[in-house]
Amino acid sequence: MAKQDRAIRTRQSILLAAAGVFEERGYQAATISEILAAAGVTKGALYFHFQSKEHLAQGVLAQQDLEMALPRNCKVQQVVDMGMLHAYRLQSDPMVRAAVRLSLDQQAQELDRRGPFMRWSDSIRECLQTAQTQGELLPHVVPHESAEVMVGAFAGVQAMSQTVCDYQDLQHRISSLLRHLLPSIVVPSVLAAVDLGENRGEKVFNEMRGLRQQEEELVPAVS
Amino acid sequence: MAKQDRAIRTRQSILLAAAGVFEERGYQAATISEILAAAGVTKGALYFHFQSKEHLAQGVLAQQDLEMALPRNCKVQQVVDMGMLHAYRLQSDPMVRAAVRLSLDQQAQELDRRGPFMRWSDSIRECLQTAQTQGELLPHVVPHESAEVMVGAFAGVQAMSQTVCDYQDLQHRISSLLRHLLPSIVVPSVLAAVDLGENRGEKVFNEMRGLRQQEEELVPAVS
Repeated sequence: MAKQDRAIRTRQSILLAAAGVFEERGYQAATISEILAAAGVTKGALYFHFQSKEHLAQGVLAQQDLEMALPRNCKVQQVVDMGMLHAYRLQSDPMVRAAVRLSLDQQAQELDRRGPFMRWSDSIRECLQTAQTQGELLPHVVPHESAEVMVGAFAGVQAMSQTVCDYQDLQHRISSLLRHLLPSIVVPSVLAAVDLGENRGEKVFNEMRGLRQQEEELVPAVS
Repeated sequence: MAKQDRAIRTRQSILLAAAGVFEERGYQAATISEILAAAGVTKGALYFHFQSKEHLAQGVLAQQDLEMALPRNCKVQQVVDMGMLHAYRLQSDPMVRAAVRLSLDQQAQELDRRGPFMRWSDSIRECLQTAQTQGELLPHVVPHESAEVMVGAFAGVQAMSQTVCDYQDLQHRISSLLRHLLPSIVVPSVLAAVDLGENRGEKVFNEMRGLRQQEEELVPAVS
């Protein structure tokens, strides 16, 4: 394995360990020693990648917005895909789940948790702005405001799903949220053509995985 | 002061102390000793009212849904009032704030936090069911589903407001959330007559306080 690949894998395994510790213990109570023990790496390796508990937490937080969705001609569909894919990942990927829970960890007072809210809002706002220039949105819509409502509402609906049934109905709840929000944002003819199905997130996830595999086959192995 | 009044006040001061400790330390880390110290009551008095940390937490959780709103002829207005009044209380009442934060305390794994979500959903669902029989809702609406979306979305929008600006823009965000959700639920002619203004919560709060004062004046003092 090339040296760079190894470094990336070490970094990822530290983040996964940190995610688990933050999820179990909360940011406040978690210690670097616990993360070290869970990651099974040397202190030197950990500090090479992350200088502090806060750096570890920011690394985990950032794991929820690495690949938000695939670009689509219909920008409303792209926004829907972002939400449904995120819901699918929340159900299936422990790292994403830990990252989202850390964003809502109210006891983590020294940790700046605004990043994920702002990055998601910015990405959705940009998408809605393009949607607006393409005539997909109702005339009164303010993309910034609708983006903030969507991000906030998503955060709460996932928290409620986690609280009442440990995420079992998450795809259904997020699809339902979008069905409630979009009619006040999107023109009816566009809305009618958008896929809001509960399995949309899984579809997009598989599509992205397929594309990544194709890419990897095209790039010859370096070492 | 009558004996019963004194008991009610003691109970309330214990709950306020518990709310503060849960908010500062989180449910997991909080101890009954800390709550005792903050409340300034005897151990006997505390255990007379609450048998355990969980009972204290359930007592705090219940403080967010004691008086949800005033009955209105227009049930959609009543639902709006519930949301806007709750937002106003979140900004102005430390007990309500602590209760809502406890509902979203993900580290409180042994604590059943479903209660507030279910009580709010039930109350809004009932209101929407009456609204439906009165012809206020669009024909496709399923009150149960819309109620769950509203409660979940509210929880997230308030968490986002707290994270990004310590609740300064909460009234604005909740009003904006309702403007985004209601067009897919309510018939346009009813929606046009509903007060969705950002100061609606404060108005309802003052109206309720006025009614309570009138009531108190009508009841002669017992002791």
